[in-house]
Amino acid sequence: MTVIKAALLGFGTVGKGVYDAVQTHRQELKTLLGAEVEIAGVLIKDVKKERNIEKHVLVTDCFDDILQIPGLDVVFEAIVGEEPGFSYLQRAMEQGCDVVTANKVMFAKHGAQLLDIAREYGVKVGYEATVAGGVPIIRTIAQQLQVNKIGRIQAILNGTSNYILTEMRKRDSEFQEVLQQAQELGYAEADPANDVEGNDAFCKLMILSQLAFGSQPEWKNVQVEGISRITLEQVQAAKEKGLRYKHVAEAIKEGDEIRASVRPVLTSANHPLYSIEGVDNAIVIESSLAGTVTVQGPGAGSGPTASAMLEDMAHIFQGAPATHPEKNRKKAAAYA
Amino acid sequence: MTVIKAALLGFGTVGKGVYDAVQTHRQELKTLLGAEVEIAGVLIKDVKKERNIEKHVLVTDCFDDILQIPGLDVVFEAIVGEEPGFSYLQRAMEQGCDVVTANKVMFAKHGAQLLDIAREYGVKVGYEATVAGGVPIIRTIAQQLQVNKIGRIQAILNGTSNYILTEMRKRDSEFQEVLQQAQELGYAEADPANDVEGNDAFCKLMILSQLAFGSQPEWKNVQVEGISRITLEQVQAAKEKGLRYKHVAEAIKEGDEIRASVRPVLTSANHPLYSIEGVDNAIVIESSLAGTVTVQGPGAGSGPTASAMLEDMAHIFQGAPATHPEKNRKKAAAYA
Repeated sequence: MTVIKAALLGFGTVGKGVYDAVQTHRQELKTLLGAEVEIAGVLIKDVKKERNIEKHVLVTDCFDDILQIPGLDVVFEAIVGEEPGFSYLQRAMEQGCDVVTANKVMFAKHGAQLLDIAREYGVKVGYEATVAGGVPIIRTIAQQLQVNKIGRIQAILNGTSNYILTEMRKRDSEFQEVLQQAQELGYAEADPANDVEGNDAFCKLMILSQLAFGSQPEWKNVQVEGISRITLEQVQAAKEKGLRYKHVAEAIKEGDEIRASVRPVLTSANHPLYSIEGVDNAIVIESSLAGTVTVQGPGAGSGPTASAMLEDMAHIFQGAPATHPEKNRKKAAAYA
Repeated sequence: MTVIKAALLGFGTVGKGVYDAVQTHRQELKTLLGAEVEIAGVLIKDVKKERNIEKHVLVTDCFDDILQIPGLDVVFEAIVGEEPGFSYLQRAMEQGCDVVTANKVMFAKHGAQLLDIAREYGVKVGYEATVAGGVPIIRTIAQQLQVNKIGRIQAILNGTSNYILTEMRKRDSEFQEVLQQAQELGYAEADPANDVEGNDAFCKLMILSQLAFGSQPEWKNVQVEGISRITLEQVQAAKEKGLRYKHVAEAIKEGDEIRASVRPVLTSANHPLYSIEGVDNAIVIESSLAGTVTVQGPGAGSGPTASAMLEDMAHIFQGAPATHPEKNRKKAAAYA
């Protein structure tokens, strides 16, 4: 039996999720790929911390050790921030490894460049996990709507802010109160700004724009407004009229121009995102032939994100088709 | 420029939709496939009927004429019923043509066999259009949830019955009254039994079961109950409690057993199909890693069905990866 040798960069929620999923889905991977997937190395920050990792796996805080794993096939990146994620993936690709990333901040900025590097070195980049966790939105756009022209994307791309808005309305609670509970439940980070102020949704929207339209709008021209200033009074007044606040990320292509925004929107029952509740994400795609198609599901979490990363890996090792050379997008190397 | 030569079997709503979409998306197809798509022949029943088809296209009521088109690459089948659809596709495949079908009645019964024939003759079968029109549910299951184990599918697979249930509730109207209006609007057929009694949804559910679980339950063991006996009084009583009737097709895999049903279900606001309204279709997939993923969109109509068929064609001529050899399913030839 062939072995696919993989390394994990990061062993937080996502990294551990991939590690566990490889164990629980060993048989599925074997049948699908005709190969064992072996996690051969894990890059962590603190080598002294106790982790539930099998003894034969190399656990190191030095990326060079990872690159020196003999016959390394694929690198899963699940670390936070532009760097060192980008440099690590670049070096892995230069060495001939395929890469799979969940890093939206890095990919929003360096995605096009990573895809160029992948082309140059004849390797592949999977980035399904950068947007909306287990929801297969990247490949839905890249592979299922290739003939269709996409005109508009409207989406809820951050589960934390959607959870907060949902609970404010359902429980008649103030923003701060719900936020605190979300933090206790693990739905919100200690520093929630990235989620509730829209930066996280912004990064994901830029990745979707690049994919669907072949380019991103100038970042400075994108209106990004968070939900932290929405008051309980506003939520209640809306509720009485049957309306709901939703934190909507939107990108529209008109001619050669792309307009994009992330902002709270007051939705009525016939808005396609009105019924998306709690921590779910959803993406509404307006396309020329298929019409308005919506994909919805868990936007974060260990299992869903691991799902996206392993499905990416499956595509890479099955040799999936090139996607969408039209629209000038610099993404042909993905799954190419 | 290479030419992909195609033939249409049938020129009703779907066949005409494909014909038109090939014209309106000529540039997209060219960029994507590096080839012109040429509709070289159209099989119709009544040659005397006026149709808006270009003069150079062979229009015939004889299938042998279609098979004799020199260099025919792909056959789009959009005719109704098991036969002659199945025999026509079989003959086309034996001659080396790839095929794309929208025929759910035929595919529910003969799908596995068609895929076997495709394997034997080294050709491909696309059947995205058999379930839920423009909603890319076939490839979402076949390609985006390959590593995931699927445990349950719940779906609204018939837009006509969902439209009727929605309008009965919204307008406080009787079944017969809404049905009549739906017929006037073209949402329901003159003989609506196939839609409102659940047979159409049943066929689609069987196709999804085969795909997700590798087999179908015994047809006689599947409970199929329509919506025609739901009274306005029942709908109104439910409405007062905030509940909605939905016509739910469900398949569950437990061990080696598959349980399936199509029946009216009283849903509350936290049911994943509660908010699916009007002619939309939606499919809720419960999977081992990604969690509960929902795909929603227009389940029928000229554009959406043409979308599914052209996206299938794009996959075939790009050489997409084999899907899901696990689970014993006889579908590996699709997109293989």
